[in-house]
Amino acid sequence: MDLKSLDVLLKPRSVAVIGASDNPHRLPGMSLAYMKLAGFEGDLWPVNPKRETVQGLKAYPSVDDLPGTPDVAIIATPAHLVQQAVEDCSRLGVGAVVIFAVGYSEANEEGRKAEQALLDAARKSGMRVLGPNCLGCFNAATGYYGTISISLASGLPTAGNVAVVSQSGAYGEQLAYLLKERGVGVRYLVTTGNACDVDVGSAIDWMAAQDDVDVIVGYAEGVGDRDRFVSALERAQAAGKQLVFMKVGQSETGMAAAMSHTASLAGDDKVWDAVLRKYGAYRPVSTEEQVDIAYAASRGLLPAGRKLGILTVSGGFGIQLCDAADQYGLEVAPLRDEVARELTELLPFGSINNPVDASGQIVGELERLKASIACLSDPAAGYDATAVILGSVPLGPGMGTVLVDALLELAPTVRDRLVALCCVADRETVLRVEQAGYLVFADVHDAARAIAALATLSEYKSRQASGAIALPSPIPRGGKLSEFDAKRVLEAAGLPVPPERLARSADEAVAAADAIGYPVVLKVCSPDILHKTEIGGILLNLPDASAVREGYATLVERAASAGFAESALQGILVTGMAPRGTETILGVQVDPTFGSTVLFGLGGIHVEVMKDSALRLAPVSEEEAHEMIREIKSFPLLNGVRGSRPSDLDTLARAIASLSRFAAANADTITSVDVNPFVVWEEGKGGAALDALISVRED
Amino acid sequence: MDLKSLDVLLKPRSVAVIGASDNPHRLPGMSLAYMKLAGFEGDLWPVNPKRETVQGLKAYPSVDDLPGTPDVAIIATPAHLVQQAVEDCSRLGVGAVVIFAVGYSEANEEGRKAEQALLDAARKSGMRVLGPNCLGCFNAATGYYGTISISLASGLPTAGNVAVVSQSGAYGEQLAYLLKERGVGVRYLVTTGNACDVDVGSAIDWMAAQDDVDVIVGYAEGVGDRDRFVSALERAQAAGKQLVFMKVGQSETGMAAAMSHTASLAGDDKVWDAVLRKYGAYRPVSTEEQVDIAYAASRGLLPAGRKLGILTVSGGFGIQLCDAADQYGLEVAPLRDEVARELTELLPFGSINNPVDASGQIVGELERLKASIACLSDPAAGYDATAVILGSVPLGPGMGTVLVDALLELAPTVRDRLVALCCVADRETVLRVEQAGYLVFADVHDAARAIAALATLSEYKSRQASGAIALPSPIPRGGKLSEFDAKRVLEAAGLPVPPERLARSADEAVAAADAIGYPVVLKVCSPDILHKTEIGGILLNLPDASAVREGYATLVERAASAGFAESALQGILVTGMAPRGTETILGVQVDPTFGSTVLFGLGGIHVEVMKDSALRLAPVSEEEAHEMIREIKSFPLLNGVRGSRPSDLDTLARAIASLSRFAAANADTITSVDVNPFVVWEEGKGGAALDALISVRED
Repeated sequence: MDLKSLDVLLKPRSVAVIGASDNPHRLPGMSLAYMKLAGFEGDLWPVNPKRETVQGLKAYPSVDDLPGTPDVAIIATPAHLVQQAVEDCSRLGVGAVVIFAVGYSEANEEGRKAEQALLDAARKSGMRVLGPNCLGCFNAATGYYGTISISLASGLPTAGNVAVVSQSGAYGEQLAYLLKERGVGVRYLVTTGNACDVDVGSAIDWMAAQDDVDVIVGYAEGVGDRDRFVSALERAQAAGKQLVFMKVGQSETGMAAAMSHTASLAGDDKVWDAVLRKYGAYRPVSTEEQVDIAYAASRGLLPAGRKLGILTVSGGFGIQLCDAADQYGLEVAPLRDEVARELTELLPFGSINNPVDASGQIVGELERLKASIACLSDPAAGYDATAVILGSVPLGPGMGTVLVDALLELAPTVRDRLVALCCVADRETVLRVEQAGYLVFADVHDAARAIAALATLSEYKSRQASGAIALPSPIPRGGKLSEFDAKRVLEAAGLPVPPERLARSADEAVAAADAIGYPVVLKVCSPDILHKTEIGGILLNLPDASAVREGYATLVERAASAGFAESALQGILVTGMAPRGTETILGVQVDPTFGSTVLFGLGGIHVEVMKDSALRLAPVSEEEAHEMIREIKSFPLLNGVRGSRPSDLDTLARAIASLSRFAAANADTITSVDVNPFVVWEEGKGGAALDALISVRED
Repeated sequence: MDLKSLDVLLKPRSVAVIGASDNPHRLPGMSLAYMKLAGFEGDLWPVNPKRETVQGLKAYPSVDDLPGTPDVAIIATPAHLVQQAVEDCSRLGVGAVVIFAVGYSEANEEGRKAEQALLDAARKSGMRVLGPNCLGCFNAATGYYGTISISLASGLPTAGNVAVVSQSGAYGEQLAYLLKERGVGVRYLVTTGNACDVDVGSAIDWMAAQDDVDVIVGYAEGVGDRDRFVSALERAQAAGKQLVFMKVGQSETGMAAAMSHTASLAGDDKVWDAVLRKYGAYRPVSTEEQVDIAYAASRGLLPAGRKLGILTVSGGFGIQLCDAADQYGLEVAPLRDEVARELTELLPFGSINNPVDASGQIVGELERLKASIACLSDPAAGYDATAVILGSVPLGPGMGTVLVDALLELAPTVRDRLVALCCVADRETVLRVEQAGYLVFADVHDAARAIAALATLSEYKSRQASGAIALPSPIPRGGKLSEFDAKRVLEAAGLPVPPERLARSADEAVAAADAIGYPVVLKVCSPDILHKTEIGGILLNLPDASAVREGYATLVERAASAGFAESALQGILVTGMAPRGTETILGVQVDPTFGSTVLFGLGGIHVEVMKDSALRLAPVSEEEAHEMIREIKSFPLLNGVRGSRPSDLDTLARAIASLSRFAAANADTITSVDVNPFVVWEEGKGGAALDALISVRED
């Protein structure tokens, strides 16, 4: 039986409320009350065997008595009646049910079984299930409120271009409330709770297809169906939606709490970072940040770059915004000469730098203010966004009003430009200037954070265009790989390796060394010896043939005393002494949820002790690999410090990208790859994988 | 002439407004209008030669016609009349004047002179000056508003226990406004503007002496009078005031903007950090953070530690708060057994860990909720603060009201405990529960940040009790110090140095090496040779007498070819080969504003490339030195990684503290000290200053 589309859940034309209560303030009465208040445009059918009417609407004794088959049934009955209600609905061909009741898989094993029984009943007809243990959903445009969200009691939302999806009902309703308070129109809310059927992924997937949604605000503690989630992110990205997604459980205690709360594996947090970044989703760390970025994104303008022009009525605020811009990676670039000239004429009393300190006097010279903002936000000025700091002036009874009028007059001129006003004002004034197209922030710090977030979303978007990455053919499954074999595999995948040969006798070793050139390195080579140094299995810097001959014997002997007979060895690896360079680590891990990831960092203490590494889902483009290289804190060590020349970053980026393609192609075959070290020499001189370990799945 | 106390400026009994306008919305009428609205309890005398009355009050044609000498004169005249007004006031013996006019030192050299003339006139009588280019000050308790702050038009503050001082008028008034909106009572506001007389330091000093002030909220771009500022911080700390101080200009562009705005040197930002930390001031980075921490501090309760107990109605929020707690260094410690037992009985439907997930059901079981909060916040539970997450429930018309009633009933029980409610509610409800003693945060992230900030303030406070640090006698001024002399000085100051002798001949060198024990190190030693390695002036690992003899000759020869004759050398330093250990850097810099600072970090790349160091004002206690050691990101390298034993951190801390005392005692003599490397061996084995450079002031 095919599952019904989520359209039936979120755009229903008829809604039954089973167990509807006459009291609009109690949970079983809430959903009906909200729909009545909002003037739901479809049919509204309370089901209550004990009453003739509920909240003034004709009540039906059972779902079988309804005048038609509802698209949605809201199940507001006590928990022990839920199963029967679901079965009735499924039998009748209801499109979707919303279940608020608790005590299911979130509670215990018995509850898990009860939840499965709900799903089984629904699956018979393809009926969709939202919940249980959720707060429901709404569609503000049609006045459909299949929800017991308490926060709506403070006022219903306006149907803007934002959709909210949250695994947690409580967080979802709070987000919807705070977005409303911030003046953002939330059109859809979906809370998934235990998500026995509809989960965060399916909700995002549906939202991605809605023309009236531009921004998707999400929250999850973990992910159930990985493929559904990832393909939903992909679809949202392709559809040009902005995603502002909070994933909690970064900390150890948070992860433990998530485990105990939802029994869903929180997953490696760095992998989550990599996933969200790959699909262009912005990841906020606090609710305030999430609300603010969603607010800014809902304006629909993404800056092309990170250059910020600032005009301020007070020097102090300008300095503060410079600090915040620096913190968030915005550039307070100097004024272009022609812009400086124009502003000098416009603001004879001002200080003409960036920030432009127009001084408090500008408040009495509103034509000059308008012209200055227009000048600074004109594309010709070269800024990607403009911040105008007005402090408390808009609060002033006289001068605040004329100032706001001036900004409204200016609005059409700067309509397609990103202009953020930093000021405090009464709510009504804020809404007026927002409707005219400005963003408004009380704290300059938040303005910088939001503009930087939009720039990040813009960068994600432009990267998206770089196209699919072709993968190599996967290696066969089964068996172990020696260092020699691992390097051959990686060489085939495009990683540079040093010239080397496998010798099965001292004579072969000398011949190999002669061919490679002295000095050379000898290493024992066997798929069974993972840690060569522990058995003394590496000899460095051998200067001539006799040293190689002697070395061969030494290594064979050491392997034997460690329990590896010569016949068990693949051979002795002969390789050239690599020149000194910077040692890096390239790694692959296969995440149980999200698949292959590629890691990069510097050798020595940096990755292991200082936890300084960059991680991405595989595959990555060379451009993304360059981003990874620049992202680590120890990047200065690669970029030339203390008079040393920069390293060959292009070679490094190519190696990371090659390894990532290999990782993506072999996600089913390998469990990890360790290229440690990958040495990189100075610019133009390349690099090489000096050692490599590939762990292959044991089946 | 003695300067009058600031009491006269901030607690005046009579106020004249010179140039007062009849229009309450225009700047020259604002101050008077606010005082009338607030019912200022003293005499209010408008001065305006053109009117009989101003805003309904009898107006006087000039200050000479006033019925008495006012404590304060607000000068609201046009700029060209200000000098005359100041002279008149000074002649009459007015206590203080407040000057809003601009165009003084912030504008140009001419303005700087005009400002000096204002000050000269005031100094004749000891009259105090606030401004020019400021927004004035207020005392909310007496209804005195010597200010043209526009933000007050939205409502006057209530006189709580918070005082605000800001160099920037616009930022100061916005802070006062946002604090009011956050429900915090601002009793005093002082904005200093150009601060020709009253500056941020003098305002803090005055506020520190006020019994009705518990929290001082400050803002500065730089500091004029260093001694006044530091002694004010000291006094505020001693008086037990909580200081929440923003210093802007961290970033390069911010610093440049600060220079151009106030012409006051912003100063090294890390030194500012060290200063504020030393005197127990919390430094926020955003306005929201500043307002939130001031709000939390105004409650008057500091937690003794960092253990946080969490009770939540929704698992998702609990996870989020765990993440935020981790970010801010709070510990979500497990429940004690007896607490877990009690909560298991109280919450049979809950999940009994920390966070305690009471589930949504608790909302219908308010006696259980009250008992659970009481249990968790009881000192016996071992938590320093409790967070109770209620989500949107307080918004609900029915259940919100009974929930709030339950919290109010519980309030007396938890009155002296730090209990933060995380929820959204209407403003009136928030104010009610705040008045009952709870803190309220809409975002769990902010709750964690605020509780952590209070814990930091508490730690600062307990450290304060550690007493004054005795300083050694300073070294004499003048002259340069060789490595040998520098080490003797540092050895006298308490730093361990390796055994070493100065040899003036090869024979002396051999004798020294024999006494010290082989192998040894030889170094050229002269106050004129700063970079020994550049001339090959160091020989390591000399195994025997003949090598020492030969080495002596080699070094003398190398010094000679670098232009230093043997007679110009102090000698050749003979020292033992130090065992390998971890190389650290101890440094002293004398900041032009704040004096001696001590720096600590690891050698190699860490301090110089990775900018990983800890800095404090000198002197520091050993306890603070331990804090510095733990503060650097590379601390794991000292604490035993990859199976190595931890370093001797006590020796290191003693060395840092000793160096800091030396630095403090010699702030007038030295410009810098570089102990690089200070090698530290494993626990119990000590450490030693292997090289040292002291730069002495050249006068």
